[in-house]
Amino acid sequence: MSETNLIGEAMYHLAETLFPICRSITGEGVRQTLKIIQEHIPLTIKEVPSGTSAFDWTVPKEWNIVDAYIEDPDGTKIIDFKKNNLHVVGYSVPVDQVMSLQELQQHLYSMESMPEAIPYVTSYYKERWGFCLSHKQRMSLKEGQYRVYINSSLTQGFLTYGELIIPGETEKEVLLSTYICHPSMANNELSGPAVVTYLAKWLLELPRRNYTYRIVFVPETIGSLVYLSQNLGVMKTNVVAGYNVTCAGDERAYSFLPSRYGDTLADRVALHVLTHKHPEFVRYSYLERGSDERQYCSPGVDLPVASIMRTKYGMYPEYHTSLDDLSLISPAGLQGSYEVLKDCITLLERNARYRIKCLGEPQLGKRGLYPTISTRESGQTVRSMMNFIAYADGTNDLLDISDIIRLPVDQIYPILDDLIDANLIEQIW
Amino acid sequence: MSETNLIGEAMYHLAETLFPICRSITGEGVRQTLKIIQEHIPLTIKEVPSGTSAFDWTVPKEWNIVDAYIEDPDGTKIIDFKKNNLHVVGYSVPVDQVMSLQELQQHLYSMESMPEAIPYVTSYYKERWGFCLSHKQRMSLKEGQYRVYINSSLTQGFLTYGELIIPGETEKEVLLSTYICHPSMANNELSGPAVVTYLAKWLLELPRRNYTYRIVFVPETIGSLVYLSQNLGVMKTNVVAGYNVTCAGDERAYSFLPSRYGDTLADRVALHVLTHKHPEFVRYSYLERGSDERQYCSPGVDLPVASIMRTKYGMYPEYHTSLDDLSLISPAGLQGSYEVLKDCITLLERNARYRIKCLGEPQLGKRGLYPTISTRESGQTVRSMMNFIAYADGTNDLLDISDIIRLPVDQIYPILDDLIDANLIEQIW
Amino acid sequence: MSETNLIGEAMYHLAETLFPICRSITGEGVRQTLKIIQEHIPLTIKEVPSGTSAFDWTVPKEWNIVDAYIEDPDGTKIIDFKKNNLHVVGYSVPVDQVMSLQELQQHLYSMESMPEAIPYVTSYYKERWGFCLSHKQRMSLKEGQYRVYINSSLTQGFLTYGELIIPGETEKEVLLSTYICHPSMANNELSGPAVVTYLAKWLLELPRRNYTYRIVFVPETIGSLVYLSQNLGVMKTNVVAGYNVTCAGDERAYSFLPSRYGDTLADRVALHVLTHKHPEFVRYSYLERGSDERQYCSPGVDLPVASIMRTKYGMYPEYHTSLDDLSLISPAGLQGSYEVLKDCITLLERNARYRIKCLGEPQLGKRGLYPTISTRESGQTVRSMMNFIAYADGTNDLLDISDIIRLPVDQIYPILDDLIDANLIEQIW
Repeated sequence: MSETNLIGEAMYHLAETLFPICRSITGEGVRQTLKIIQEHIPLTIKEVPSGTSAFDWTVPKEWNIVDAYIEDPDGTKIIDFKKNNLHVVGYSVPVDQVMSLQELQQHLYSMESMPEAIPYVTSYYKERWGFCLSHKQRMSLKEGQYRVYINSSLTQGFLTYGELIIPGETEKEVLLSTYICHPSMANNELSGPAVVTYLAKWLLELPRRNYTYRIVFVPETIGSLVYLSQNLGVMKTNVVAGYNVTCAGDERAYSFLPSRYGDTLADRVALHVLTHKHPEFVRYSYLERGSDERQYCSPGVDLPVASIMRTKYGMYPEYHTSLDDLSLISPAGLQGSYEVLKDCITLLERNARYRIKCLGEPQLGKRGLYPTISTRESGQTVRSMMNFIAYADGTNDLLDISDIIRLPVDQIYPILDDLIDANLIEQIW
Repeated sequence: MSETNLIGEAMYHLAETLFPICRSITGEGVRQTLKIIQEHIPLTIKEVPSGTSAFDWTVPKEWNIVDAYIEDPDGTKIIDFKKNNLHVVGYSVPVDQVMSLQELQQHLYSMESMPEAIPYVTSYYKERWGFCLSHKQRMSLKEGQYRVYINSSLTQGFLTYGELIIPGETEKEVLLSTYICHPSMANNELSGPAVVTYLAKWLLELPRRNYTYRIVFVPETIGSLVYLSQNLGVMKTNVVAGYNVTCAGDERAYSFLPSRYGDTLADRVALHVLTHKHPEFVRYSYLERGSDERQYCSPGVDLPVASIMRTKYGMYPEYHTSLDDLSLISPAGLQGSYEVLKDCITLLERNARYRIKCLGEPQLGKRGLYPTISTRESGQTVRSMMNFIAYADGTNDLLDISDIIRLPVDQIYPILDDLIDANLIEQIW
Repeated sequence: MSETNLIGEAMYHLAETLFPICRSITGEGVRQTLKIIQEHIPLTIKEVPSGTSAFDWTVPKEWNIVDAYIEDPDGTKIIDFKKNNLHVVGYSVPVDQVMSLQELQQHLYSMESMPEAIPYVTSYYKERWGFCLSHKQRMSLKEGQYRVYINSSLTQGFLTYGELIIPGETEKEVLLSTYICHPSMANNELSGPAVVTYLAKWLLELPRRNYTYRIVFVPETIGSLVYLSQNLGVMKTNVVAGYNVTCAGDERAYSFLPSRYGDTLADRVALHVLTHKHPEFVRYSYLERGSDERQYCSPGVDLPVASIMRTKYGMYPEYHTSLDDLSLISPAGLQGSYEVLKDCITLLERNARYRIKCLGEPQLGKRGLYPTISTRESGQTVRSMMNFIAYADGTNDLLDISDIIRLPVDQIYPILDDLIDANLIEQIW
């Protein structure tokens, strides 16, 4: 097995380890998750008290849950949180009651369109309780008195997130953001932290990095809002590109969702990589957004953040149900996302503007970069290098030149190495 | 009959009243026309003396006409100005002569291609006289001596126009311009004044107006030149958008003719309304212009003026002939133009730039604008509002946002009302 | 025979005269060529010493050759420089040896794909010797000892070029550049100097010129580099447009190769002329460049230079072989290039920005430019003039207006003359 496959397997294994934990936007599930990730990378775990303001929002109470179940009229436990944590509506308040089926129905959530699946439902900002179950099971419930029991707590506590800053040669930053707030779901949750953890490991091992890397594991929405409200100044100054990493583990597609105007460096880099490596990728509009780019790209925040995914949230049938389980993701699926993001980072690290140091064409021949005899055929051989030089005028970055000379960056890297070795070209950051 | 239909009928009735009057670019016909309009709206009538300079032009002598006819060799009145004022070439000098048919032919105008129609012919800037008649009638003329009689006068007088300024909350202005210089023709003349008169009535009745409205009834070309030469400074400072209203009464088409570069607010607003309400509209080039936009959009004048029409002048066979009569226009035709222009004005009044007041997405839930429970289905319901907010960053006006989020302004107005009520958004004019 | 045809014939005759001379990037062949051109136009011949720096390059030693041949094992002269100067690799060092066929093969160049053609080969910057021959002849060589003889010299000498500055009313310049460094080849060499010589004659005879014309005959690459390194300041300040003239003599096609970004005045003018006169022309990308535009358009040099050709170098099979002889070019082929370049220069001379002198439309009637009687038909007759005036707002040059009003410049010239005569318009350079 190659090293490459090993990383896919390792990411899948991390997702497996994290899968059973009951996460929400606050609580012990988030802490446990971050501690396991800390075994891989030197994450700093931060705690923000309930009641803290974050722009238009407030950190809610911390929610924890010990147990929950429903007993049917016969006293049989027909729904059990310990078997599947999706059974409880996220942020359910405690309850211990006996009630009729009719009364119970007001608190049940199921999906007629997917009768086998338990839907994922939350109620973060209004206190209520509820249970989720498959529509098939719901249909089988008989009349009678049911006992409902939720042993949960909503207390003044904390919102928890993880942060890792990997310094580079400049203070300019690349942001990687993923979320850790869903209970047992695989593609729309654990694929993101798994891929970001292993990207961080790779970045930490690089001999040098031009950029500083800001890597965050936050609860979605409220977590990114909290993080932004506490770091907006430095991020607006420093972040040159960022990616929200989610739904990164299946093998069905590659997907791209742009930043608000779709014209940032993050967009250009992702589009270049996907266009050349996975030309069949699905290109979404920002109107179809749904994750933390909603905050990172909001007016006044305006960070250059795009999303690279496999199948986008909301676009696969298992999304936000119990069917988004470990069978939906694979080592190869995770590996694909990891490789694309690695390609993006590699490109970011080289995407300076370039300027040729001499006027007129350089004499490549005296540097061994040109054939010494001119025949009719020899003209084509150094054409790519000459084309690169022609547009290395200090106004174009690598992506611009790649577009103009119609050569993917992978094929330009060796040319660039030769020109830098020959001291013919300078970088402008 | 609904109020809406009543306005169409009322506009048609006004056109009927104005139809018989013999208008030209100066003279009693213009005064009579403006006085009738004054019965509907508080128009100011202004008089500009013959000889007054207007940029490269000079106000000509005032032309008035009492009677005109041709008697055939038998003494029969075969052409009679009192029966159709199109029979006399506009600005004909007086004549009272007997002449041969051959000599008379030099002074006759008819259209071989439309043998039943009397063509409309003028000679404002060179003194001559002439008669217009159907080609059919012309062909029937027999040899012999004809008496030609025109009792007209060309004197030092005035050019007359009407102006109505309806103040708004800002000094910034919207211009509505139409012309009152053609004799008895319906679509290419009276449809314009009729629609503009009723738009003025509607504007006067509005509880508030953001913009000030400058409404002018001028003789075409020389009238707009005179008006511009006397008001250019304030108009260049204040006018943000304007429409030339002409050929507004038939039911055959909607047409749009842009400003000189086609990129002004007037263009954007008209194109939005026509595209969404009448997507089959005909889009002309400025190269096909032919009315007062020639002056309003001329180099150095550069006002943001476009034209919204039903069937464009020159594009319907009856244009500039006696067949452009009251049967060519209808209450419904006039009503259509009235509604489109009302929609344009409504949009102008709301087309601020918008800026969301908080960083990050606002928490709509605490304002009752978001479902409190998150299910897989609930995500779509507030998407339009969130999309509006995403682009309400202070750089986009309503039209920009409408284009970006692909939602017609009619569907954005209620969202806008909600956001303004919730104090989440500010307008930037 | 018309004057036009006479010029085509004259250009062809000049090419015939220059054909037999053995040119290279330095040496007596260049001097002889320039002296013959001097008989037609008052060219200044300049000499730049070997060893002179030109940006990243150095002027090489001067190469001259007296004789060269190969004798076969029977003592028969089978290859003779005096019969075709393409037989010797350009810049071959002297040699006088007897060697086996096997050893000789290392010094022979032929083209298997074109067995009848002698290829054109050079080795300017590495000292070697070699012979070129048809592949057919090469295949017929038998085993044995061959005598190879090249009587050439590489000495501290000069690079020679010709320059002609034709002054105009402004110091702003148009550049015409062609090259004089290939041995006996017709389309890819002599067509360029022939056409440029006769364009210079025409320019010299013009009663007035707005622009100054800088006309250079240089050895390709090293010559333009030398010329630029000595004239860059004045050229960057003054040159508004330029053309590299090459491959201008065949009848197969018209071709256009743009400047580096394709947006200069030279590009716009050439595209206008070719689009309207030869709409079938072939449009190349700058990525397909191959002549002195490589230097003129290089980063930091940035001159507005494009190439107008008949069939582009490299795109016809005879290119860089002995088959590119006088049968490949014709008087008509040369004439075509001459006419296109004359049209470009004519357009450059008139391509001011234009501004109408009055506000509002001018009253054309009082200047005899408009019919005095308005009939339905008369509106179209002055439309082109009115359209020109509508966009003569001081922001558009003639090419812009031509594009906007969709009228080729040839049809605008008489309108322009009328408006200038009427003092209605001003030029802005």
